[in-house]
Amino acid sequence: MGRWEPNARERLERAALELFEERGYDSTTAAGIAERAGLAKSSFFRHFADKREVLFGGQEVFNRLVADAITGSPPEATPIEMLGAALDAVAVVFTDERRALARRRQAIVAGHDDLRERELLKLAALTGCLSDALRGRGVPDPAAGLAAELAGLAFRNAFARWIDPANDQGFATIARQELKALVAATATLT
Amino acid sequence: MGRWEPNARERLERAALELFEERGYDSTTAAGIAERAGLAKSSFFRHFADKREVLFGGQEVFNRLVADAITGSPPEATPIEMLGAALDAVAVVFTDERRALARRRQAIVAGHDDLRERELLKLAALTGCLSDALRGRGVPDPAAGLAAELAGLAFRNAFARWIDPANDQGFATIARQELKALVAATATLT
Repeated sequence: MGRWEPNARERLERAALELFEERGYDSTTAAGIAERAGLAKSSFFRHFADKREVLFGGQEVFNRLVADAITGSPPEATPIEMLGAALDAVAVVFTDERRALARRRQAIVAGHDDLRERELLKLAALTGCLSDALRGRGVPDPAAGLAAELAGLAFRNAFARWIDPANDQGFATIARQELKALVAATATLT
Repeated sequence: MGRWEPNARERLERAALELFEERGYDSTTAAGIAERAGLAKSSFFRHFADKREVLFGGQEVFNRLVADAITGSPPEATPIEMLGAALDAVAVVFTDERRALARRRQAIVAGHDDLRERELLKLAALTGCLSDALRGRGVPDPAAGLAAELAGLAFRNAFARWIDPANDQGFATIARQELKALVAATATLT
């Protein structure tokens, strides 16, 4: 490791978003991001494998939060209650301070097919993680897979509302609303 | 267009699968596929934009089949009944003759992150198409999005069973079973 660099990871993230917005994602390099952050290029690669990872890092931590919330739910919890706990756990990552950054990040991802594909892979890993955790709690298939998809949809719907500039509610509040609305909607399908 | 080339598209598809299996996806070129199919390289590019499209072509037709089935469902059909019609329509593409090819294709896609990401983008487009068609039939949100995810999951579960060598049922039969099982599972979540 090099010399101490306070908040290097966060500085690199902010610098990357600035450059992606100013120059476009394709024209931005790891070296350019490091320079903007006032760090050496080698510092960039201590924190991220490549520029794409600036947008997609931290998934293991995220998925672990979600799985632990399900595994740690009370014994009597229903699948939906376990999913509610998982969405609450996610709110630790989606804080009010992160909201504006998340919005800018999402605009960049939405503008590139490659990044959208990566995002979908990330979401698929999340639902896979949810369904595995539910199976670990004794929820059988296909209910486990269905519940995971439902939570994935609640998550996406909640995220879209959370980053909306018109919204000022916290992620957990919105996610609970979305989950409840989806559960209510299941009764209207047949 | 060049001279008449009987079944050129299908010959290119079969040649591509052979080469992907023999040499690996990364080491296969469009020129190599054309050569194996006994066609000129220019013929390849009349049918496919690149080698990846050999695996992912035809999505517009597929999504159109699905949307038309929903749009053309009887006025009194429930969302689930509309989805059943959509899954039936898909069976036109997933014929018994295509089953072995689909299995080989899936093994190649599963082995590459890039291809798996592309597959997820394709599935996201399919569920987007389903939810749009349902909204067009008056199904409100979030039920339309939920129903589309449920159908997407039924589709994926059915596809996995359909390409299983131990299975000899047709796609429509399997898909209807999967859809029914998921609808039954919704009642077990709360």
